[in-house]
Amino acid sequence: MSAQTGRSAVTVLGLGPMGRALAAALLGAGLRTTVWNRTPGRDAEAVAAGALPASSAAEAVAASPLTVVCVVNYDASDAVLRQDAVTAALRGRTLVNLSADTPGRARETATWAERQGIRYLDGAIMTPTPTIGTPDAVFLHSGPADLYEEHRPVLEALGGTHTHLGADPGRAAAFDIALLDIFWTAMSGYAHALALAGAEGVRASELLPFAQGIGAILLPLFAESARDLEAGTFPGEGNPLTSALSTMEHVVQLSDAHGIDAGLMRAAEAMARRAVEGGHGADGFTRVAEMLGGR
Amino acid sequence: MSAQTGRSAVTVLGLGPMGRALAAALLGAGLRTTVWNRTPGRDAEAVAAGALPASSAAEAVAASPLTVVCVVNYDASDAVLRQDAVTAALRGRTLVNLSADTPGRARETATWAERQGIRYLDGAIMTPTPTIGTPDAVFLHSGPADLYEEHRPVLEALGGTHTHLGADPGRAAAFDIALLDIFWTAMSGYAHALALAGAEGVRASELLPFAQGIGAILLPLFAESARDLEAGTFPGEGNPLTSALSTMEHVVQLSDAHGIDAGLMRAAEAMARRAVEGGHGADGFTRVAEMLGGR
Repeated sequence: MSAQTGRSAVTVLGLGPMGRALAAALLGAGLRTTVWNRTPGRDAEAVAAGALPASSAAEAVAASPLTVVCVVNYDASDAVLRQDAVTAALRGRTLVNLSADTPGRARETATWAERQGIRYLDGAIMTPTPTIGTPDAVFLHSGPADLYEEHRPVLEALGGTHTHLGADPGRAAAFDIALLDIFWTAMSGYAHALALAGAEGVRASELLPFAQGIGAILLPLFAESARDLEAGTFPGEGNPLTSALSTMEHVVQLSDAHGIDAGLMRAAEAMARRAVEGGHGADGFTRVAEMLGGR
Repeated sequence: MSAQTGRSAVTVLGLGPMGRALAAALLGAGLRTTVWNRTPGRDAEAVAAGALPASSAAEAVAASPLTVVCVVNYDASDAVLRQDAVTAALRGRTLVNLSADTPGRARETATWAERQGIRYLDGAIMTPTPTIGTPDAVFLHSGPADLYEEHRPVLEALGGTHTHLGADPGRAAAFDIALLDIFWTAMSGYAHALALAGAEGVRASELLPFAQGIGAILLPLFAESARDLEAGTFPGEGNPLTSALSTMEHVVQLSDAHGIDAGLMRAAEAMARRAVEGGHGADGFTRVAEMLGGR
């Protein structure tokens, strides 16, 4: 059996929706792929598509020079990888962790891997499950550049675009979290706007073309804001923070009038108000990013 | 003087940055335009460009069949319009209020105008000052359809696209606020992401192409989410609310680790958690909009 004789190109640990999509893409690219999942039976779909089953995580890891792990977070990947038999099987092989967690957890895992003689790359998947294996998938990677180059052909079999962000193993997670910060905040704002519009008798499909118009103007504004932040200049002509704050108050007022929770906009308002109270009311909105700082 | 003999096509009350842009666009389209601002001297730019000055708001209103008012909010427009001489001058003429406020204030102003014999349209400007007079401007209008059609040629001289949303005078404001809800929440999320990335040593310009990628995927997701909400179905395959919540927690954890206020993501998290605790953890994110409801 290939999984026991090490003749598989890549092993996938974790067969949730994302893990199954990764295995399907690798198989679709013609790579011999070994799969394993903690809950038995989850490998049926992958095995039916040609994947090699394994009776344990250690056996699965031993089958391939490269193991990709994709589980819910690093507590879950630790629970699999830090069993003695699995750690021993990983020694001298390459591990790519595509699970999502903080940069700190990624760095700590890289340190652990190094001590164990495991070659380690960290990564993040930026696009939803259906994009995997298609040109729309976006993968971020960090860790040793030469190790990334060595395994790039197999990683690229996952489809989409792959970017190596640098040697710091925490970098993929740092980008991931910053991008998910944008994504979930925006989606939450949209969900809130749909509720608010609904309470005013405006259907989601009526709001949609204008909502997409707002989405479209975000792209150039993101660029402008990035330039402002790096230059340390916050021009507010035409749209000062005081105007933003006035608009935000209208959102809160209308939410309150309809009994719709406005915690999200109140939090946004608090960020803007801090900048205004700091004497920056005439500045543009990017001043808020500078004020948030970070220690 | 034209402003006294009523030979002007349109009057602009309020000459802040947006009012000045409106006057410039009207003048640029070749329309005789009368201008007035509460703080004297603010009309210098418009007058230099050919606008007719007026010594009072009442005189300015009397000069044209159509008056456009654009001030910070409806407290400010009331302070101008509800002076006896101004109200009297508006009688039988058309007033378009492009100031920003809630739908309730717009409806109340329409009721007041009707009682005073003033023909009234409400409107909202969705794009920043520099877009006025260009194809990029977006204007929303609400109020009587025939009145809108009558004044449409002058309104279209402001540039961009103009949409009449219906007879309810509050409708332009309802769209405006829902759209600004999306806009300021997304911009706040981006500002937060820039701060978080910065604390991780990631420059704004490094994050930018990926941030724009996130911005681009919002457009189809907005459409999908609108369809789900109207259909009352919330498919979560591949991206259930429980996964969203796990990601949101990472944003909060990393913010806390860097001493960056995470109030915005905590508020988003609270919205998602309410849906999960309501038994909808396997649903897609749009369930959050339905849960927010509104009475």
